[in-house]
Amino acid sequence: MTRISTCGCGIDVHAHVVPASFPNYMGAAVPADWPSMADAKPCHKHVMMSGRIYRTVSDRCWDVGKRVADMVEMGLDLQAISPMPELLSYWMEASPADDLLRYINDQMAEMVAHSGGRLVALGALPLQDIDRAMVELHRLKHELGFAGIEIGSNVNGRPIGSPDFDGFFAEVEKLDMAVFVHALRPAGMDRLVGPAQLQQVLAYPTDIGLAAASVITSNLLLRRPGLRIAFSHGGGTLASLLPRLQEGYQAFPVLRESIREAPVAQARRLYYDALVYDDATLRHLIAKFGETQIMLGTDYPFAFHDRTPVARATSAIPDEATRKLVVRDNARRFLGIGESVTS
Amino acid sequence: MTRISTCGCGIDVHAHVVPASFPNYMGAAVPADWPSMADAKPCHKHVMMSGRIYRTVSDRCWDVGKRVADMVEMGLDLQAISPMPELLSYWMEASPADDLLRYINDQMAEMVAHSGGRLVALGALPLQDIDRAMVELHRLKHELGFAGIEIGSNVNGRPIGSPDFDGFFAEVEKLDMAVFVHALRPAGMDRLVGPAQLQQVLAYPTDIGLAAASVITSNLLLRRPGLRIAFSHGGGTLASLLPRLQEGYQAFPVLRESIREAPVAQARRLYYDALVYDDATLRHLIAKFGETQIMLGTDYPFAFHDRTPVARATSAIPDEATRKLVVRDNARRFLGIGESVTS
Repeated sequence: MTRISTCGCGIDVHAHVVPASFPNYMGAAVPADWPSMADAKPCHKHVMMSGRIYRTVSDRCWDVGKRVADMVEMGLDLQAISPMPELLSYWMEASPADDLLRYINDQMAEMVAHSGGRLVALGALPLQDIDRAMVELHRLKHELGFAGIEIGSNVNGRPIGSPDFDGFFAEVEKLDMAVFVHALRPAGMDRLVGPAQLQQVLAYPTDIGLAAASVITSNLLLRRPGLRIAFSHGGGTLASLLPRLQEGYQAFPVLRESIREAPVAQARRLYYDALVYDDATLRHLIAKFGETQIMLGTDYPFAFHDRTPVARATSAIPDEATRKLVVRDNARRFLGIGESVTS
Repeated sequence: MTRISTCGCGIDVHAHVVPASFPNYMGAAVPADWPSMADAKPCHKHVMMSGRIYRTVSDRCWDVGKRVADMVEMGLDLQAISPMPELLSYWMEASPADDLLRYINDQMAEMVAHSGGRLVALGALPLQDIDRAMVELHRLKHELGFAGIEIGSNVNGRPIGSPDFDGFFAEVEKLDMAVFVHALRPAGMDRLVGPAQLQQVLAYPTDIGLAAASVITSNLLLRRPGLRIAFSHGGGTLASLLPRLQEGYQAFPVLRESIREAPVAQARRLYYDALVYDDATLRHLIAKFGETQIMLGTDYPFAFHDRTPVARATSAIPDEATRKLVVRDNARRFLGIGESVTS
């Protein structure tokens, strides 16, 4: 059997897209956060939001040819693409946000169509307005054929475990779509001391950890056992929070009543990417969350992305059967693309 | 050699005190948060704050005889006592807070005096007013003979790595006092879904993790290399944040410039308690933070405390030399009580 590190069969569930351009807003008053592109150094553009450069990105954000060539280098044969999280625009008025996200979803559909089967898409929804989100959810499923959706770790501060989203998740479960939860506009910003990059470095994993915990404490997977929901950045801080949550569940009767299955068991119902940059930490996640729940994730093509996801899994995971699950099979199950786990 | 699990020689650096009573406030307008005690079930009292029961606590919070008897049961021969964190009162006007904390410190000094050498104290300071805090710091050192201080993970939202506290930590280093950082009024409260107890279960470790990260990103231990500073709850989420902080430090030039020593190396300059309720997680902390940096911590005598700290260390740590460090020697070094690490 060919070693998995060189077989080019990895699946990456955490990779982002920025369209090459954005349309002008057609309504009366342009929302402040409506994005546009400005020229930057060769092969790059500035994503402009609220009159400032939000991020300078490479053309790999929209160029399918370059992306697929990079995937070969990285040992990947499939990538699930999702919007750069800041584009989710939950803070924008719902009507223009809906226009923007429909445009982005259409652009992603184009990328998938031109990828020769190398890409699947996780679309964006205007979750500040559940009714509009439901309409677009159905369009993603029935018109664009998307594998699932990307959502933020919170929607304007409301954690995704909030009962506000119960009806929405019921519909996602019914439509059999994957949910990839990405950190966004995180809690804890006033606790950081240092450069702005600490937002993604420290506050992102903090917020995704609290989002995963909110899904556990609200028993979401017990109410929606068919929901396939994955958390970015290895679930962030969840691995550190989980033993204490388990102990609190055992120590406090009120938690024992409100949490309907042990937190350590509920954590094994969730999926996580492997984007933790450390072999021992990845092994710890596999032990705590289960070998069937971890999948490759790279954050491609942003500056801070994992360039060697398959090699990293090979180094971190000595057991070949487990490695095969993490590199490929778990992602197929999560994305619902129909290959059995044991194949 | 006697097995360490039964030798009764453990040292607990995380244990709390509530005085049996509080004085009436002698000033003009009683601060809303000035605490008082109300009768509760036998051997218990309600700690009243702002007209409500903040917590119902047992007489083990102030009864030295019962505490020492429990310590024998728990395999401990020394405990570092610190105030119930909410008593730190950073949100109170500085003058009454100073009065309250001086009273609490005096009560702790009494407990130490009656403990037959079984207790040392980590005192409280009104850090909302650095000048007053400095005065009380000197009193703790020179009049009360305290081993160190307890501080919150933030002071009214300012993380302890903030430059605001530079002069304060310089003085602590000069006085050779230990600093125990405890989670308090944490970030992330709006991300919780469930009962109020999730504050201590999920938001406390979140805030202490961000506090430890702020100490690393601000290079505190490089400026104050003699400072002995420990973090509650195993450093909370720091273990999950650290690999990503290390990767960010390598990926972003601006972080490489502002952080003056690798985060993974700086993390090994800090101390942590072992209060993580999980053998695999404790071993992970020892591997990541260093076998010389982890110490027993119980959260005694609150409902949610570790009743078998030495047995837990014995189960989690197969290597006897490492276990001896964690159970006893690291705490002696942290507390500055003069037994060599290798004795």
